[in-house]
Amino acid sequence: MNARLPRSPQQLTVEEIFDAHAGGKLTIASTRPLEDMRDLSLAYTPGVATVCEAIADDPGMARTLTGVGNTVAIISDGTAVLGLGDIGPRAALPVMEGKAQLFSSFAGLNAIPIVLDVHEVEELVETIVAMAPSFGAINLEDISAPRCFEVERQLIERLDIPVMHDDQHGTAVVILAALRNAITLLDRRLEDLRIVISGAGAAGVAAVEMLLNAGAHDIVVLDSRGIIQADRNDLTPVKESLAEKTNPRGISGDMKVALTGADVFIGVSGGSVGEDALKLMAKQPILFSLANPVPEIDPALAHRYGAIVATGRSDLPNQINNVLAFPGIFHGALAAGATAITPAMKLAASRAIAEIAAENLDVGHIVPSPLDPRVAPAVSAAVQAAAGE
Amino acid sequence: MNARLPRSPQQLTVEEIFDAHAGGKLTIASTRPLEDMRDLSLAYTPGVATVCEAIADDPGMARTLTGVGNTVAIISDGTAVLGLGDIGPRAALPVMEGKAQLFSSFAGLNAIPIVLDVHEVEELVETIVAMAPSFGAINLEDISAPRCFEVERQLIERLDIPVMHDDQHGTAVVILAALRNAITLLDRRLEDLRIVISGAGAAGVAAVEMLLNAGAHDIVVLDSRGIIQADRNDLTPVKESLAEKTNPRGISGDMKVALTGADVFIGVSGGSVGEDALKLMAKQPILFSLANPVPEIDPALAHRYGAIVATGRSDLPNQINNVLAFPGIFHGALAAGATAITPAMKLAASRAIAEIAAENLDVGHIVPSPLDPRVAPAVSAAVQAAAGE
Repeated sequence: MNARLPRSPQQLTVEEIFDAHAGGKLTIASTRPLEDMRDLSLAYTPGVATVCEAIADDPGMARTLTGVGNTVAIISDGTAVLGLGDIGPRAALPVMEGKAQLFSSFAGLNAIPIVLDVHEVEELVETIVAMAPSFGAINLEDISAPRCFEVERQLIERLDIPVMHDDQHGTAVVILAALRNAITLLDRRLEDLRIVISGAGAAGVAAVEMLLNAGAHDIVVLDSRGIIQADRNDLTPVKESLAEKTNPRGISGDMKVALTGADVFIGVSGGSVGEDALKLMAKQPILFSLANPVPEIDPALAHRYGAIVATGRSDLPNQINNVLAFPGIFHGALAAGATAITPAMKLAASRAIAEIAAENLDVGHIVPSPLDPRVAPAVSAAVQAAAGE
Repeated sequence: MNARLPRSPQQLTVEEIFDAHAGGKLTIASTRPLEDMRDLSLAYTPGVATVCEAIADDPGMARTLTGVGNTVAIISDGTAVLGLGDIGPRAALPVMEGKAQLFSSFAGLNAIPIVLDVHEVEELVETIVAMAPSFGAINLEDISAPRCFEVERQLIERLDIPVMHDDQHGTAVVILAALRNAITLLDRRLEDLRIVISGAGAAGVAAVEMLLNAGAHDIVVLDSRGIIQADRNDLTPVKESLAEKTNPRGISGDMKVALTGADVFIGVSGGSVGEDALKLMAKQPILFSLANPVPEIDPALAHRYGAIVATGRSDLPNQINNVLAFPGIFHGALAAGATAITPAMKLAASRAIAEIAAENLDVGHIVPSPLDPRVAPAVSAAVQAAAGE
């Protein structure tokens, strides 16, 4: 039924899109002119030897005398790209370049797209640990579940720089910000909501964690086989953990069972939800269909049934877009010299995003525009404050 | 005796050098403005999905629709940095950043500094192969011998993008260009020269190869234990191969033995050569002391004894600087869509560099200035022509 949704409601043509990508979307240049021999002697030999020796004596000097203090690697193996799935490292590169554009434009950070042609957890971890001295922080991107959980866990353990899988935490940070503002508009409390999350992958698992931390009680999660509950014998360790934390009413079955009487639908699965299921929800439901490029609920249908509707698309209202979170989170973590991105830092980022939208709140503006220049500095400041505590 | 040489004859202060490095030497930015939702939709979601799918269908499209066709990785493990030795990946980063500045300033290429915290040949190769889809070409840098030979060999075998260890081939290309012009000035022939190379590492091995290909017959190579010759029982496989190709007069002993009657000294070792040894050379010797930051022969001494003197420093005349070669070589290889950098391409690069200096040849100008804007385009054009043959 999503077939009715054009690939691009903004009528972007393939030609325009290709033009916007021709030759790549990034330029890497010198911050200083190299115009005479003195410039060359300062930046390269012999001057650079003085800097190398200073860092060899005191590795901490790399933070100020090289770009690492301002540099984020965006690393993917291309296994879970947008809603397109496992399209491989080469085909994932345009997304990493796009994200690097956003890091630069919104937070002034240098971001380096790295796509990896290895896929086992151990290979990914060893490869990333090996190259880590090149960067100040690592944004893991579009790595499929459940490997993404273990890759992130091991990297956080082994590296002393911030590592965050943005598909998990960036998304969860913005979902919580949007949901907070949505229930303010509807005069509801997080504690009272029945929340259904479609998708037990990267974003779903992190959203559960964040919503529970924020006070939600009744969350039901579905994977492709239905509602996750402890009696199922096909659960991965990550889903077993979800079954323990969620589904307090112990229901089982399909999406219709889950949505019956539910207040909130959060889609992070790429599946599809039809009118028959939406009809079963509580009054004035909140519908977040975040799959990209094709939302789980057809946008026209969502607006017919939902009191508040959000998607992941930049061409529709209420875009729950990671760009609201990741530039400021990484900027704040780097500016604070943090060695990790803690739950408190993520919660602070979510509050900062919600507060900016709250200044002019309505059903079409529960999150700030991705282009709002106030967001990244506010998120960075909140993250720095939380890092310092 | 090199203690008399100030670290920086240009009187660069540590403060100036640190200022030239503060915050890093590179900036990574978007090539297009991201000012409205349409920009965002074109560069990121949903537009980017169209590009991802196009590359998934035809991987060759990555060459035009991402930055890889214009992107070189500069990869080091920090084990042979300048003349400073094994100072580790973090301390090597300023050199990689400096080189990226040069790639950008001279050839308009995007270059990404990557320093690796692994050092075994297999680990280096596997790590670099894993990240290779991120780049259009790979410039290996400052990896110590003999590992550098095997790392480069395996990467060339496994990857279908150009891979070149610049400390080997970039240096050899410029040495040959400089030597060609030096012997033109002195009215000598390459075939008649007695050439001594101090150093059997990366640059020494590649210089031997290139000089032999160009017509030289009498090359004697020394390592830290003296002249390399077949009777020695302490030779690595690489040095055994050198012993077969060089030292046609079968001499053995130390630097004084090697330099007795020699026409050319090429230092790529970081050792030191004194007046007593220089006195033993043939008349009008050519002295290339390329160690950085401290040349093998004190510059004042070299100018007293040598007919033509060159160093590796940017603050002295006749700088044999890789920057004359690598920007154009990589630009040409990428522009040609070459899958490797062949000996013919390197020879073409060397000729192009020599020809530019030959237009205004004198003993103080046997190579072009590293800042000469004609060099990289000429090298690129020559390399492209050679790649097409």
